[in-house]
Amino acid sequence: MAEAVRHDKTARQLRMLSDALDSGRLGPVRRLVNTLAPAEIGNLLESLPPGKREVVWGLVDPEDDGEVLVHVGDDVRESLLADMDPDEIIAAVEDLDIDDLADLVEDLPDTVIDEVLKSMDRENRERLEQVLSYPEDSAGRLMNPDVVTVRADVNVDVVLRYLRLRGELPDHTDHLFVVSRRHQYLGRVSLAALVTHEDTTPINRLIDDEQPAIDVGESDQEVARQFSDHDWISAPVVDENNILVGRITIDDVVDIIRGQAEHQALGAAGLDEDEDLFSPVWRAMRRRLMWLSVNLCTAFLASSVVGHFEGTIDKLVALAVLMPIVAGLGGNAGTQVLALMVRGLALGQVGASNARTLLWKEVRVALLNGLLLGSVLGLIVLAWFHSPGLSAVIAIALTCNLLFAALAGVLVPLTLKRFGFDPALASGIFLTAVTDSMGFFTFLGLATLVLLH
Amino acid sequence: MAEAVRHDKTARQLRMLSDALDSGRLGPVRRLVNTLAPAEIGNLLESLPPGKREVVWGLVDPEDDGEVLVHVGDDVRESLLADMDPDEIIAAVEDLDIDDLADLVEDLPDTVIDEVLKSMDRENRERLEQVLSYPEDSAGRLMNPDVVTVRADVNVDVVLRYLRLRGELPDHTDHLFVVSRRHQYLGRVSLAALVTHEDTTPINRLIDDEQPAIDVGESDQEVARQFSDHDWISAPVVDENNILVGRITIDDVVDIIRGQAEHQALGAAGLDEDEDLFSPVWRAMRRRLMWLSVNLCTAFLASSVVGHFEGTIDKLVALAVLMPIVAGLGGNAGTQVLALMVRGLALGQVGASNARTLLWKEVRVALLNGLLLGSVLGLIVLAWFHSPGLSAVIAIALTCNLLFAALAGVLVPLTLKRFGFDPALASGIFLTAVTDSMGFFTFLGLATLVLLH
Repeated sequence: MAEAVRHDKTARQLRMLSDALDSGRLGPVRRLVNTLAPAEIGNLLESLPPGKREVVWGLVDPEDDGEVLVHVGDDVRESLLADMDPDEIIAAVEDLDIDDLADLVEDLPDTVIDEVLKSMDRENRERLEQVLSYPEDSAGRLMNPDVVTVRADVNVDVVLRYLRLRGELPDHTDHLFVVSRRHQYLGRVSLAALVTHEDTTPINRLIDDEQPAIDVGESDQEVARQFSDHDWISAPVVDENNILVGRITIDDVVDIIRGQAEHQALGAAGLDEDEDLFSPVWRAMRRRLMWLSVNLCTAFLASSVVGHFEGTIDKLVALAVLMPIVAGLGGNAGTQVLALMVRGLALGQVGASNARTLLWKEVRVALLNGLLLGSVLGLIVLAWFHSPGLSAVIAIALTCNLLFAALAGVLVPLTLKRFGFDPALASGIFLTAVTDSMGFFTFLGLATLVLLH
Repeated sequence: MAEAVRHDKTARQLRMLSDALDSGRLGPVRRLVNTLAPAEIGNLLESLPPGKREVVWGLVDPEDDGEVLVHVGDDVRESLLADMDPDEIIAAVEDLDIDDLADLVEDLPDTVIDEVLKSMDRENRERLEQVLSYPEDSAGRLMNPDVVTVRADVNVDVVLRYLRLRGELPDHTDHLFVVSRRHQYLGRVSLAALVTHEDTTPINRLIDDEQPAIDVGESDQEVARQFSDHDWISAPVVDENNILVGRITIDDVVDIIRGQAEHQALGAAGLDEDEDLFSPVWRAMRRRLMWLSVNLCTAFLASSVVGHFEGTIDKLVALAVLMPIVAGLGGNAGTQVLALMVRGLALGQVGASNARTLLWKEVRVALLNGLLLGSVLGLIVLAWFHSPGLSAVIAIALTCNLLFAALAGVLVPLTLKRFGFDPALASGIFLTAVTDSMGFFTFLGLATLVLLH
């Protein structure tokens, strides 16, 4: 349940850090910061307003600088990079893994990129260029080209001797990949299999050839789905000729999943997931303005519906008092349907094949809720305004608006998706445009027909 | 960008399955279903309406039944279990891992639980009882008690001989845990270290004692945060005496992270994350009714504010036409602030130490946006109604309401959290109660003061 009530380590660290900063003694701050993992330092920096952020950033162990930069949002990264001179940046990023470096490189100044490329050996430079040649948000961009491969025609002892000679393995190596002479992917062998089998066991008896390779062009969303459906820790990445080009590990996938959730939560309010909590006021203003402007347009649409019924309201002011209820409840009911649909679409559970069944279910739910809530609302209005006609009108209008809300809740996201838009981001605006306008229209229209003629 | 436009494997499978089902030939359906991983089958079952869901469930290979049950939401699980007789259920669940079984067991009929417990050997029964003794959503409930331990005072070759004797390792074993004679956790040794070091290397030279153990009572949210901050694949779990009691693996953590995101997205609309897309109409209706009833109350609050100004509206009907704009834009602006705050609170980035700085930033953003949008709105209203007074009133009212929205956006989630409620779930209702009521109040109140006196 409520994550809010949970004991919260980050918030506690933040408070301690903030107290230490306020006291002005930087020694304790430095010690506190450098007990943290880079991702935790990134989280802390994101929670600090600009002045304090610079101070703390200056205290971070230079060895961690690169990893911290990888773990913050684009906006905060920009503010941190602005604080470093080129030599510091080069020192910070040159030891990063290729996949992390590829993630950062486009935010670096051009002169720094040249220096970084020059400081790399040829193999790593070619690997970085290869990773950068794939589109952002593709498997190719997520992968690390540093993989350990073995051949199928050797025994366990040969592999163990090779590994002992090699020394360190890349982080999160749980499998070695078996490749052909031409470096085509054949399957994988787990370290667990290596350590539980006799030295004389041939590798081709231990191969797991069930694990499919990921295509280098696949989208990161699809990669995330496969990892979580199959409980993978790592997976091989191949090009169109089945040549092994890299390896994706679960830690990068966890970042994708988190990013996806933030993208949906903030995107639904017209914000970017890289939005800095403390972004400069002018920038924050400009970003929010566009969304609010779109909302101003839909508000005028609803308002113009009300404008058509000025004459009716003039004769019966109670309508102006009650009309926000019909519109508002419609919006809320529609939001519930929308939340289910957006999740269903994100999981691939909703499509042409079941849309009609879903719509029919939602229409029945809306009808039942409309009749029930409409009756309650009608009775309250009867007690308040002593007008059976008004009471009947609002009950019917609410039921109708819940039906419109159900239709919009199902059809708006499907339509947006059909035309290539992300239903998680834009559905809310269209939905409330429908429920506001139709709420006002049915309520004021019915009132004009029933109460004034 | 748009995950919506991405090629979507699940949706394609669903369409193929649906076509095959419609054609009535179950052979192809069975073949299609049984090429899928259990999590994918679960996802497909969730996307099918009840009739078809039963048919497909009957075609799933009984070997996969247990894993599929683990991977579906509570509502769908209930409907699948209702379709099985006790023997089938027992056969399905008895081969599950202890952590998965613990997750399922409370949804099983009592008679089945007894049978399952009887069918287990004593060691596993005790392990299951131990896991079940920890609170839901705690590390103890997430962990698997099946761990591989070694002692510090042996060499690599002893460990390798032990592992070869043991045979299979538990899924996702990337580290062995080093324990004392009394089974206290001392550190861990990676399989990567085992295979890259000579047979004669002593284990105590390979120990990584930096990895802290997770406390068995820790919340699953905190576990997820640590895994993603430290890029762990697995982590040891200890009790209050530092005795090693189990191991948590990243695949369960990914499920937690996904669940958390769904909980927030659906919770914000007053729904449960276990809500079945095709839940029976009566059940869906009852669940949504409570949320809509709360919304009905806040709508009446806003409506009663309008009611106080009936006399004013009676004299100037244009107010009724324009008032939804002021209320609506306030709600949208507040939602943006709220989205940032809810994310910040979930990440532990927002607390008493920076709340004031945040509030001040948001107030300035609101003021700038208010002045700008207010001017635009004022000009449009001037062109529409030719009343400079009305134009000035709506411009000022909008600016004020955006300020109220900023205050509510920052303070509502902080207050809810302070009183132990989940800010992600309830903030929206309170926020719109404020922005609707204050929007109507400032607009109609100012109009009464300026235009009627």
